[in-house]
Amino acid sequence: MFISIEKLQNEIPQSNPDPKAANALQEVLGGKFGEMRVMMQYMFQTFNFRGTAKPYQDLLRSIASEEIGHVELVSYTINMMLEGSTNSSDDPTSLTMSSALDSPNIHHFLVAGQSSRPVDAVGNPFLGEYIYDSGHLPLDLIYNLIAEATGSLQMCRLYQMSDNKAFRATLAFLIARDHAHQKAWAKALELMGVKWSDQIFAIPHFDFSKLPEVKEHMERNLHNQQWTFTNGPSQMSKIFSGESPFGKDQTLEAIDGFPVGFSIPQLPEAPQEFSSGLLQSGIMDKISQKI
Amino acid sequence: MFISIEKLQNEIPQSNPDPKAANALQEVLGGKFGEMRVMMQYMFQTFNFRGTAKPYQDLLRSIASEEIGHVELVSYTINMMLEGSTNSSDDPTSLTMSSALDSPNIHHFLVAGQSSRPVDAVGNPFLGEYIYDSGHLPLDLIYNLIAEATGSLQMCRLYQMSDNKAFRATLAFLIARDHAHQKAWAKALELMGVKWSDQIFAIPHFDFSKLPEVKEHMERNLHNQQWTFTNGPSQMSKIFSGESPFGKDQTLEAIDGFPVGFSIPQLPEAPQEFSSGLLQSGIMDKISQKI
Amino acid sequence: MFISIEKLQNEIPQSNPDPKAANALQEVLGGKFGEMRVMMQYMFQTFNFRGTAKPYQDLLRSIASEEIGHVELVSYTINMMLEGSTNSSDDPTSLTMSSALDSPNIHHFLVAGQSSRPVDAVGNPFLGEYIYDSGHLPLDLIYNLIAEATGSLQMCRLYQMSDNKAFRATLAFLIARDHAHQKAWAKALELMGVKWSDQIFAIPHFDFSKLPEVKEHMERNLHNQQWTFTNGPSQMSKIFSGESPFGKDQTLEAIDGFPVGFSIPQLPEAPQEFSSGLLQSGIMDKISQKI
Amino acid sequence: MFISIEKLQNEIPQSNPDPKAANALQEVLGGKFGEMRVMMQYMFQTFNFRGTAKPYQDLLRSIASEEIGHVELVSYTINMMLEGSTNSSDDPTSLTMSSALDSPNIHHFLVAGQSSRPVDAVGNPFLGEYIYDSGHLPLDLIYNLIAEATGSLQMCRLYQMSDNKAFRATLAFLIARDHAHQKAWAKALELMGVKWSDQIFAIPHFDFSKLPEVKEHMERNLHNQQWTFTNGPSQMSKIFSGESPFGKDQTLEAIDGFPVGFSIPQLPEAPQEFSSGLLQSGIMDKISQKI
Amino acid sequence: MFISIEKLQNEIPQSNPDPKAANALQEVLGGKFGEMRVMMQYMFQTFNFRGTAKPYQDLLRSIASEEIGHVELVSYTINMMLEGSTNSSDDPTSLTMSSALDSPNIHHFLVAGQSSRPVDAVGNPFLGEYIYDSGHLPLDLIYNLIAEATGSLQMCRLYQMSDNKAFRATLAFLIARDHAHQKAWAKALELMGVKWSDQIFAIPHFDFSKLPEVKEHMERNLHNQQWTFTNGPSQMSKIFSGESPFGKDQTLEAIDGFPVGFSIPQLPEAPQEFSSGLLQSGIMDKISQKI
Amino acid sequence: MFISIEKLQNEIPQSNPDPKAANALQEVLGGKFGEMRVMMQYMFQTFNFRGTAKPYQDLLRSIASEEIGHVELVSYTINMMLEGSTNSSDDPTSLTMSSALDSPNIHHFLVAGQSSRPVDAVGNPFLGEYIYDSGHLPLDLIYNLIAEATGSLQMCRLYQMSDNKAFRATLAFLIARDHAHQKAWAKALELMGVKWSDQIFAIPHFDFSKLPEVKEHMERNLHNQQWTFTNGPSQMSKIFSGESPFGKDQTLEAIDGFPVGFSIPQLPEAPQEFSSGLLQSGIMDKISQKI
Repeated sequence: MFISIEKLQNEIPQSNPDPKAANALQEVLGGKFGEMRVMMQYMFQTFNFRGTAKPYQDLLRSIASEEIGHVELVSYTINMMLEGSTNSSDDPTSLTMSSALDSPNIHHFLVAGQSSRPVDAVGNPFLGEYIYDSGHLPLDLIYNLIAEATGSLQMCRLYQMSDNKAFRATLAFLIARDHAHQKAWAKALELMGVKWSDQIFAIPHFDFSKLPEVKEHMERNLHNQQWTFTNGPSQMSKIFSGESPFGKDQTLEAIDGFPVGFSIPQLPEAPQEFSSGLLQSGIMDKISQKI
Repeated sequence: MFISIEKLQNEIPQSNPDPKAANALQEVLGGKFGEMRVMMQYMFQTFNFRGTAKPYQDLLRSIASEEIGHVELVSYTINMMLEGSTNSSDDPTSLTMSSALDSPNIHHFLVAGQSSRPVDAVGNPFLGEYIYDSGHLPLDLIYNLIAEATGSLQMCRLYQMSDNKAFRATLAFLIARDHAHQKAWAKALELMGVKWSDQIFAIPHFDFSKLPEVKEHMERNLHNQQWTFTNGPSQMSKIFSGESPFGKDQTLEAIDGFPVGFSIPQLPEAPQEFSSGLLQSGIMDKISQKI
Repeated sequence: MFISIEKLQNEIPQSNPDPKAANALQEVLGGKFGEMRVMMQYMFQTFNFRGTAKPYQDLLRSIASEEIGHVELVSYTINMMLEGSTNSSDDPTSLTMSSALDSPNIHHFLVAGQSSRPVDAVGNPFLGEYIYDSGHLPLDLIYNLIAEATGSLQMCRLYQMSDNKAFRATLAFLIARDHAHQKAWAKALELMGVKWSDQIFAIPHFDFSKLPEVKEHMERNLHNQQWTFTNGPSQMSKIFSGESPFGKDQTLEAIDGFPVGFSIPQLPEAPQEFSSGLLQSGIMDKISQKI
Repeated sequence: MFISIEKLQNEIPQSNPDPKAANALQEVLGGKFGEMRVMMQYMFQTFNFRGTAKPYQDLLRSIASEEIGHVELVSYTINMMLEGSTNSSDDPTSLTMSSALDSPNIHHFLVAGQSSRPVDAVGNPFLGEYIYDSGHLPLDLIYNLIAEATGSLQMCRLYQMSDNKAFRATLAFLIARDHAHQKAWAKALELMGVKWSDQIFAIPHFDFSKLPEVKEHMERNLHNQQWTFTNGPSQMSKIFSGESPFGKDQTLEAIDGFPVGFSIPQLPEAPQEFSSGLLQSGIMDKISQKI
Repeated sequence: MFISIEKLQNEIPQSNPDPKAANALQEVLGGKFGEMRVMMQYMFQTFNFRGTAKPYQDLLRSIASEEIGHVELVSYTINMMLEGSTNSSDDPTSLTMSSALDSPNIHHFLVAGQSSRPVDAVGNPFLGEYIYDSGHLPLDLIYNLIAEATGSLQMCRLYQMSDNKAFRATLAFLIARDHAHQKAWAKALELMGVKWSDQIFAIPHFDFSKLPEVKEHMERNLHNQQWTFTNGPSQMSKIFSGESPFGKDQTLEAIDGFPVGFSIPQLPEAPQEFSSGLLQSGIMDKISQKI
Repeated sequence: MFISIEKLQNEIPQSNPDPKAANALQEVLGGKFGEMRVMMQYMFQTFNFRGTAKPYQDLLRSIASEEIGHVELVSYTINMMLEGSTNSSDDPTSLTMSSALDSPNIHHFLVAGQSSRPVDAVGNPFLGEYIYDSGHLPLDLIYNLIAEATGSLQMCRLYQMSDNKAFRATLAFLIARDHAHQKAWAKALELMGVKWSDQIFAIPHFDFSKLPEVKEHMERNLHNQQWTFTNGPSQMSKIFSGESPFGKDQTLEAIDGFPVGFSIPQLPEAPQEFSSGLLQSGIMDKISQKI
């Protein structure tokens, strides 16, 4: 069972409308190595877990739970970046949405109401096929490690594509979290005997403190922490603790529960999109007396 | 943000190995109108919500959160029904897994470790394409209504295919919950002016108390209740309260928080599947000193 | 059995080459809620119809038949808008088709011969997966209602993206027809007991007479009419008649047969596309003596 | 524009319930070389036709129109063969639909209401990707020729898989028609200069009069005829006439209009499927007073 | 550039017709971790290789080349196992192919001519989406390692499903080769600093000499060897040499060129399949005078 | 079995960065009628070959082998054209990759490391579904003929879209080769009795010597030659010899073995892509002492 906490895991700064960068960020939402995929992958590995190595299942459950919030965070970031890229008008024959024809994914405006979609950055829909769950724990863990590494690599490439504030803020947060997750899976395997190279990991190998938004998170030690994201006890810290598997004098820190979080932004009506559809029709007036 | 509660929403009774019925149940997990789909659909509608009708967003968020637990419940039910359908042996050349060749989805045994898969009952993978989110609130709500109705229809058909105890227990629970959800979306639309027919709804129109497992849940009023599935305040009850939109002297009941739940079953090692893979290799011995 | 009437259901005005808007219109042809989908969906519901409520089957058959013509109309509109966007030349090494590299769907020029494709506006191919046919008549009817509503919503969004004449003419015609279809399915359900809200429907709720091209069709009452699109008797009018299910003093009007229609445009040769391929090769000379 | 004629192109004899053979027949409906595909392919080629070789466009239009009726015919045949494979019961807890677990496509019973689906014989959904339309007329015609040949080859393989009467009747009719269509496309290319081998064609090369159901159709010359399937004039006969392109002293015969056809069977209610859903709910009583 | 050597890499023993096991083996051909996928994956990594670490590119090229032969080997094995599962007859109305209705993939008989297909063991077609090529060499190498490990895991599961001789012979050969490939990728990463655990690898961790067919290959040291599969010089041995990365006193052995190989079996005509189609038609007589 | 020859079949001239044309060329790599498809299609037809017409199987094997090299050639051409379209920088916060947002396929930069992808020109992944293999030899041969013709048609359209040198060089080479392949399949069918029209073929019918890059290859007779691409004997020349099936006084020429070929270009590191990833991390220093 899962419950929602009505907060975002990170803050999304105000930004200019930027449908191109918003579309690029779709890779992190619905792409082959995006958040929808790792969320579902870790869920399946948690639910299908076999055997008695409970701390491993607890680790899977915690990160699975965290990833739901990543889907939420990326979805909101895309929405904030799409906001304002088309406009409403009193004249229904005016070309209020012509910019959609130049947008990399017209579905943001045509199928959704100027909002995020369960697709990647070239518009291909999310596939359940992406989900990896072999039942063989060490194999699943290595796959998880490179799933995070691939996501991290892609986000570092994205970072160089736009300096939109909302875009970089969300990427920086997720880069820090993906590094913590790389450490989690690597540590889980280290306990089984693998010794990782601190020259390869975390992937991509690079001094992230050069990226100011990531540096800020690193100063808060976000890249070495893992919340349990559960309301109950967890044996996760039997794995996620001690020295980082990638060395460098870093110490893993498990924390019970979940972070305080940030307010969820409220998206305004977009009448040109007939979204929510309640204003033009007068329904809002009607229901506002009741709710 | 979301957190996990380490409980199942319903109990799964012990059952015999039954890969055929287990496979049929995959439709409820990864099918076009299965739990993965409604979970993701309601999430997208929550995150992409526009305007100020906050009680509607709260309702979407609550049911989205509940559905994550449904994915979990169905996944575990399939696992319990697959359990025991192949066997381990000391002789690695023996045909311990030959039954897989007669199973409707060989991937349960070949790709996964005798466990659930993100696919439907004919083995087609889950598609992000299934997710509906138009941005137009009334339209989304009607779609949600028929998504639940279609799910319910399919589960009523499934119920007639097998009397496996675990199978029927999970179906019965979900039939009751889908009815509550049909009422939720229908009520949300009723506030906007639609008057539903009590002859059509809840779909499929039928006296469910004739199904003993469903009757039990109805006696607990499960088909008229909705938990908020959040740790905070919610305006959901501004919608989900008062008379059922389908009449019949029933009253909708909103409840803060989440139910107590049931223990999560622990799946045993399946050495023939090399799952978890820790026993044969001696890794379990090694890590058990550390965790 | 079906036969063709060599006419279009609406006229397509001459327009400038406009591959971007043409591509946007692909959503109406091959998209998830496009004409290919509703055509196939209504056919399957007609052929798989169970029981004795023949007027319902007749209604399904009529609208299915009409939709084939919509596929034709949208296909021709796209072709008319693509026409002239690349050019032929006597010099085969000249860059006659370089504009294709800037077109949103290069397949219009590379795979097809400057013509429409069975894909949506982001280039994803039509999927049989879109087709909904549950066998449960009321459920199918509600789904049909929101399929039309979703199509209508998308076309109203498209209308704001371009003022290309051919584009808006076809959208306006289809918006009027989709409204008639929303009424058809809503009326069919009204007979079963549902009372629709005139504040929600037809979706998107909006005074369409503000769109001049739609207004023209409304003045001809096109949004309240339904031809039987068959050569024989039909009980369709037992459903499609009387007051509109959305009120507003409108009366539904069933008409036997099919409209007069408009001449089908003839597309010229496109030698740069080797389409039809008969000119350069001299085949046209050869066969013109025979045919 | 297209209209429906409420007749089937061939008669479907009564048959025993046979879900396995019914499922095999799905290949002819929704498979890569099934009727949905050729219907859509010929439509796209008709609508996207370029140049002045009007008889070729007329031929495409006629066969496209005929194929819609083939989709209908195969759909009804599958339905007739599924009929009776599950049963209704007064006891809703009885296992009336357990046979669905042994059926090759459980979706016939679980997703549809014991009826045909837009999928192939292994359950993979129809793909718009199948449709071939290059814009180059000779190329399209050769592709059409082998599309029909492939369909015919598959139907000849199917014929050997079951002697179910409905199954063989529909296959035999379509084998005869596919041969006529192979001749149509081959003749169209012969006019352009290709000389086909009577040793290769029609594919599969084989004395079809040995199949009694096909022989009957051949005696009516069905394999050499082509109706125009339009209500108006057509230049189709400028191509489809004279000697068969495959020799053997056969003469092609073009016929204006469309055949008389056969009554469309009426499928009974299937209460176990909640299909149509009108009986159990009492809706049928209600609407029967109105319609 | 690549050339063919008309030999198989391993011998396929005669076996009984076994369409169920043959279908299971499709996973190894067209599955997500099958031979088509690794072949294409290693090709893309070879062609897209960046930088000067030439021995790594040579290793990729060699294993890519080897995998083409694995596609061939599995394809022939499936064909040998399908052979004889349907029969020809002089009576074209007899049910020579009725067994196809009980086969797990009817397409083996209906779409192909009793032969292998580019699909997995549940009939889902191969997807280019499977191919992983990130451009980041260490990441690609780890992915390759677990691609081989996953393939190996699946083949060890398959081994327990049937004792068909052809089935087990091909599995045993590929298990041995996959282990050599796991060593290749692991060694390539070991040079970069990773120390692998001999308790985890090769996956699945298990004494393979207990499988008699694998043991035979191990006695020939096949699990420690790598041919260059090129006609020219290769720096592959700079990586593939020295101690196995998984320890156990094993030494890696690079060999120039390619193995001698085994004769390719010749598949007989299958007249019931119209395959090759040359016999019934008399074409074989005709061309045999010319070729 | 197959081996690699470390040469390209044609030379790729230096060109400017051109991500748009590079993306268009993806159709030739991963498109429905691209090189990956014909490579796999001919392989399946070779491996699944039935009967004794060995020269036909040898022809299939030779062209299958050649096509692997075409995949390689197109892959490298795309890479050469992508090269330089993004840049590295010492400042990790600079927008070195912003051009990716304007590229038609952002995955070239985001998923791959500025390199080719297994997708078509609209970004849709390669599908195993494309592969045609009916088992009926004449049918397979006609399909192969039009597969080559369709590929050729598309490449002639592409030629008119850009005059990038690398782009046109590779297209010209493949146009010449596709024509040789059209002749191969047509000749194979001519032996069975079909007489092709020299007015239709080779498709597209057009004087290719007007394209200077193609003319050069024609002067070397490349459009009439076929290497065996094997190290052993081959009966291919029993088919591929004598007069061209398309007339015009051309003679087919079979050649044993394979051409000399051209050096394979070496792609530089792309640090902005973290590709290969060895430079920034210091791994290159480390391994360069060992390899």
